[in-house]
Amino acid sequence: MNTKNFTKAVPMEKIRVRDSFWSRYMEVVRTSMIPYQWKALNDKVEGAAPSYCIHNFRVAAGLEKGEHGGYVFQDSDLAKWIEAASYSLIHHPDPALEKDLDDVIELIGKAQQPDGYLDTYYIIRGLDQRFTNLLNNHELYCCGHMLEAAIAFYRATGKRSLLDIMLRFVDLIDSTFGPEENKKHGYPGHEEIELALMKLYRITKDPKHLRLAKYFIDERGQSPNYFEEENKGRNFYWANSYFKFQYYQAGKPLREQIAAEGHAVRAMYLYSGAADVAKETADDGLYQTLCTLWKNTTGRQMYITGSVGASDYGESFSYDYDLPNDTVYGETCAAIGLAFWAHRMLEIEPRGEYADVLEKVLYNGSISGMQLDGTRFFYVNPLEVIPEASKKAYVYSHVKPQRQKWFGCACCPPNLARLITSLPEYAYGVRDKTVFAHLYLGGTVDLRGEGIPACLEVETGYPWNGNVRMTVHTDEAADWQLALRIPGWCGKYALSVNGETAAAELTDGYAFISREFRDGDIIELELDMPVEKMQANPRVREDIGRVAVMRGPVVYCVEEADNGGQLARIRLTDAPFTVDYEPDLLSGIAVIRTQGEYLEGDWGEDLYRKAEAGKWISKELTLIPYYAWANRQEGEMRVWMRN
Amino acid sequence: MNTKNFTKAVPMEKIRVRDSFWSRYMEVVRTSMIPYQWKALNDKVEGAAPSYCIHNFRVAAGLEKGEHGGYVFQDSDLAKWIEAASYSLIHHPDPALEKDLDDVIELIGKAQQPDGYLDTYYIIRGLDQRFTNLLNNHELYCCGHMLEAAIAFYRATGKRSLLDIMLRFVDLIDSTFGPEENKKHGYPGHEEIELALMKLYRITKDPKHLRLAKYFIDERGQSPNYFEEENKGRNFYWANSYFKFQYYQAGKPLREQIAAEGHAVRAMYLYSGAADVAKETADDGLYQTLCTLWKNTTGRQMYITGSVGASDYGESFSYDYDLPNDTVYGETCAAIGLAFWAHRMLEIEPRGEYADVLEKVLYNGSISGMQLDGTRFFYVNPLEVIPEASKKAYVYSHVKPQRQKWFGCACCPPNLARLITSLPEYAYGVRDKTVFAHLYLGGTVDLRGEGIPACLEVETGYPWNGNVRMTVHTDEAADWQLALRIPGWCGKYALSVNGETAAAELTDGYAFISREFRDGDIIELELDMPVEKMQANPRVREDIGRVAVMRGPVVYCVEEADNGGQLARIRLTDAPFTVDYEPDLLSGIAVIRTQGEYLEGDWGEDLYRKAEAGKWISKELTLIPYYAWANRQEGEMRVWMRN
Repeated sequence: MNTKNFTKAVPMEKIRVRDSFWSRYMEVVRTSMIPYQWKALNDKVEGAAPSYCIHNFRVAAGLEKGEHGGYVFQDSDLAKWIEAASYSLIHHPDPALEKDLDDVIELIGKAQQPDGYLDTYYIIRGLDQRFTNLLNNHELYCCGHMLEAAIAFYRATGKRSLLDIMLRFVDLIDSTFGPEENKKHGYPGHEEIELALMKLYRITKDPKHLRLAKYFIDERGQSPNYFEEENKGRNFYWANSYFKFQYYQAGKPLREQIAAEGHAVRAMYLYSGAADVAKETADDGLYQTLCTLWKNTTGRQMYITGSVGASDYGESFSYDYDLPNDTVYGETCAAIGLAFWAHRMLEIEPRGEYADVLEKVLYNGSISGMQLDGTRFFYVNPLEVIPEASKKAYVYSHVKPQRQKWFGCACCPPNLARLITSLPEYAYGVRDKTVFAHLYLGGTVDLRGEGIPACLEVETGYPWNGNVRMTVHTDEAADWQLALRIPGWCGKYALSVNGETAAAELTDGYAFISREFRDGDIIELELDMPVEKMQANPRVREDIGRVAVMRGPVVYCVEEADNGGQLARIRLTDAPFTVDYEPDLLSGIAVIRTQGEYLEGDWGEDLYRKAEAGKWISKELTLIPYYAWANRQEGEMRVWMRN
Repeated sequence: MNTKNFTKAVPMEKIRVRDSFWSRYMEVVRTSMIPYQWKALNDKVEGAAPSYCIHNFRVAAGLEKGEHGGYVFQDSDLAKWIEAASYSLIHHPDPALEKDLDDVIELIGKAQQPDGYLDTYYIIRGLDQRFTNLLNNHELYCCGHMLEAAIAFYRATGKRSLLDIMLRFVDLIDSTFGPEENKKHGYPGHEEIELALMKLYRITKDPKHLRLAKYFIDERGQSPNYFEEENKGRNFYWANSYFKFQYYQAGKPLREQIAAEGHAVRAMYLYSGAADVAKETADDGLYQTLCTLWKNTTGRQMYITGSVGASDYGESFSYDYDLPNDTVYGETCAAIGLAFWAHRMLEIEPRGEYADVLEKVLYNGSISGMQLDGTRFFYVNPLEVIPEASKKAYVYSHVKPQRQKWFGCACCPPNLARLITSLPEYAYGVRDKTVFAHLYLGGTVDLRGEGIPACLEVETGYPWNGNVRMTVHTDEAADWQLALRIPGWCGKYALSVNGETAAAELTDGYAFISREFRDGDIIELELDMPVEKMQANPRVREDIGRVAVMRGPVVYCVEEADNGGQLARIRLTDAPFTVDYEPDLLSGIAVIRTQGEYLEGDWGEDLYRKAEAGKWISKELTLIPYYAWANRQEGEMRVWMRN
């Protein structure tokens, strides 16, 4: 691990987004998802399952009588909402929203116990049981989310209200957990606080925050197993399933793990927190562990859409190369977690492969989890859907053919909200005098706070075309370096500065331009973006003889709305693809069309027959971006097509 | 429904089996399975899960103290064993076995209550609760199996001991259930007694036995729903699942049902009992319902192996054309149930399609459930197995790559034993002066009790070749008719009588030879039996682009033992097949070999790449009969191959 490689994200406060793709999403979050989710948290959405979230805090604060409602981790829904709303304030000041935030933070403060404890489940149901069921009861997880919320609110407003509340809770946790003999040697059943503590540490620089995060990561899975001791006599499902404690990534110490296993969201959050610790402590051993896990996750267990966690059972990873398209889970939150992790790996080493995965997740397996208008959501992100199968056959019943309004377990919607509102922070990294463009995002970025005396103005039609134009605005000509990511999907590109072809060194997926940049310099990148048929490693048995279609970072699919039903009978041919940007279709997409074929044959009532050559008839096929599926009528969808 | 079409099976007492295929199976059952299962029922098999079966009867009889052990339907394991052992006595007298049967029947008699009640679960746990949970507690199911056992024992020995016991129990049931106001309007949660009562009726000719069977069938699913009333306030899983009462085929009256739904074994037993009732009451409406259900079951929901019940969830039918090969259930008992049903349909109308399904089940999806030596058994009969997937991925975890010794729920092993020992009874049917050969089974059949003054001696190499030679032995030349089944899989055949080509009328899958048969007449049938590639209706999405290989009635598969692993990478070509009978391999099989191809490509750590033409290298493939898979080392197996 070369600490000289470390980059630091350019904070979103320095970025203005005016992007043809993401600006719309950010507006949807701001104008639709954040207000809607606020209503949901307040149980004011008619017909939706009650959240009980605000209710729980009011009961915990003594302002209302009642029981705790919802899941044991219900507090985290509010936390993720505060985080998303705070990021939104950064981009779009909104006094009414800030007032709601102030009020709810005041409520949170009232619910906090004198010693700092803050979890409505135990405050309402009995504090004597707190910290006795780390395995499944999510106190540390909820704390982690509320910490992230506190930091986001502090960044957005400068107000320490929620931060101070959470510092008191962290102090209590720090005095409860640790290697010392008088402390519990526990760690969370659902990871999350590790990465949150690292965010906190980067603000407070208080070594105890780093130490606690590191402790949670290093203690995890050590012998004797804390969870085993904690749960003797209890009958916990996952711990007694064939996962055992590896469902919680706690079957053995993290540094001994070589494959992504167990609950996928948990794994992604753990690896993200571990990456932060590896970076801050320059722990190469830990980074090497993460590299091994990265290789396994993205090289053997990731769908082409960036979804991870193939198994419905336990929302978990399956095993190497087991990537069924129809019984997949691919939770939205797990894809988001992979984006978190990819970004952190990128901060340790700016390698194109990390950014490629980040981009893949952002344009595919994460936003596929939301309706284009932000009103409905998927938990599960399948690559093959047959509505009749989902309704009639149990093995596919977790695969929903339509997004749902709001879940009892509502982890995914606010997770999408915070991902999208914080998206600008994924775009740029700085290392000394080098700025890395990881993503191509229209708008401006002010690099002056990062030691580079310039602002960049970016115009791009990404992801519908690969043209990126950057204009330098600066008061002083200066030597610095621009590292432009050349995506892994891109086989050919052209790079120019002020109209002249630039000689750029390509290293680890980035083209480096070093020069004295002056005001008005124009850097132009043209990424060739043909339609590509992709194939999977033949160890992925489900995809043999099939191809997926991509253009740039966007994975495409066929949908019944365009192509009729029984999509398994469709195949691609060698016919060329045409690409048309259609601004009015599905909020504006590049549509791909081609001449494919359909397996004819009316078999009447026959089920089996002697084999004959199939009669394939010509059929025009229309492909749309995968993320945009299920935004019209209910119907079949398929990513991997016969070829 | 034309009652003139009705046929009657030639009873197994009149058939001597000397068959190159089935004699070995019958010997395995007699010498291995029946003794082994007797030990298992007596809890004397070391290392196997205890059965508690005999224990339960001893406790119920007051001979032992103790609790009821095993499932609520544990008595049925003993019943199926008695039935199988009795059939075996018919073919092979065995005083020691008969003594065991006498003794255990005496024990059963001691357990019977003064009013005739006989179910060890309720006798031990409290008679006050009897008949209060028909939905799930299997009393009528167990009674049905014990009735079948009683009839088999009576047929084998002429002894009425068990029959009289069961007649008393049937009388009690008859006085408890029925349309009269003072009776319960219930019916079994697991069908079986219906077909058993019909077997009883054919012996007793007592109309109350027919009436009771018909009542159970007609009352099923009527409104108000008996199960709903019975279980108010109880929380029964399947009734509350998305199946509702249709899991028990009781969501609506049978005559309104148009598709096979719910638990597959239950459905098969119900349809079998209903076919008996339809025939005995000449109820065309009921037969038409069964024809509709037959078309659905065998035309849309049956694997090419004859397995039915695609879904692990509830061991149930899925929906039309949903026939996944890897997540399949295909319970051995459900295939056996389909054989029962097919045989009964055949007795209503001798149509080749019924016999084709019967034969398909017998040579494939039923006996695949047992190890060749009869010591291990499958519940689940998959068409695609990857041991690593079964062990690591929950969605395939019900698919075992190796047969198991004995199950806690041991329904399948004794069901196979009774199927195989009663197999001769499936071979012939008689209608007036016509004898139908449904199956080709080496040995002799004495038709004199059926009104045809002859015995037939049959020699055949079936299923390894299609040559059948029948010799007539008779004291009197007489006019009668021989109807030889021409299997649906057979495209070409030659038929001769005494060496001269016979002109035979082919109707509904049978070739009819009418003549004055004399002693020594020789009828020769040569069924052309090439290796055939089969394809599935393209609505079966799992099988598009794939073929299965059959020869005669036998479905073949590729196994890792012969072909190495990663069988998904194999494909067939247009290369010819060779067939070799190998007497020492897998108890004697015809092996098929061909030149196929294997998808090369070492992708290193890559997971996705731009598509290129696949590099298929030549590979010799060896195919073995599907039923014989998993008799060597553990490994992959696949029926549907790319083509």
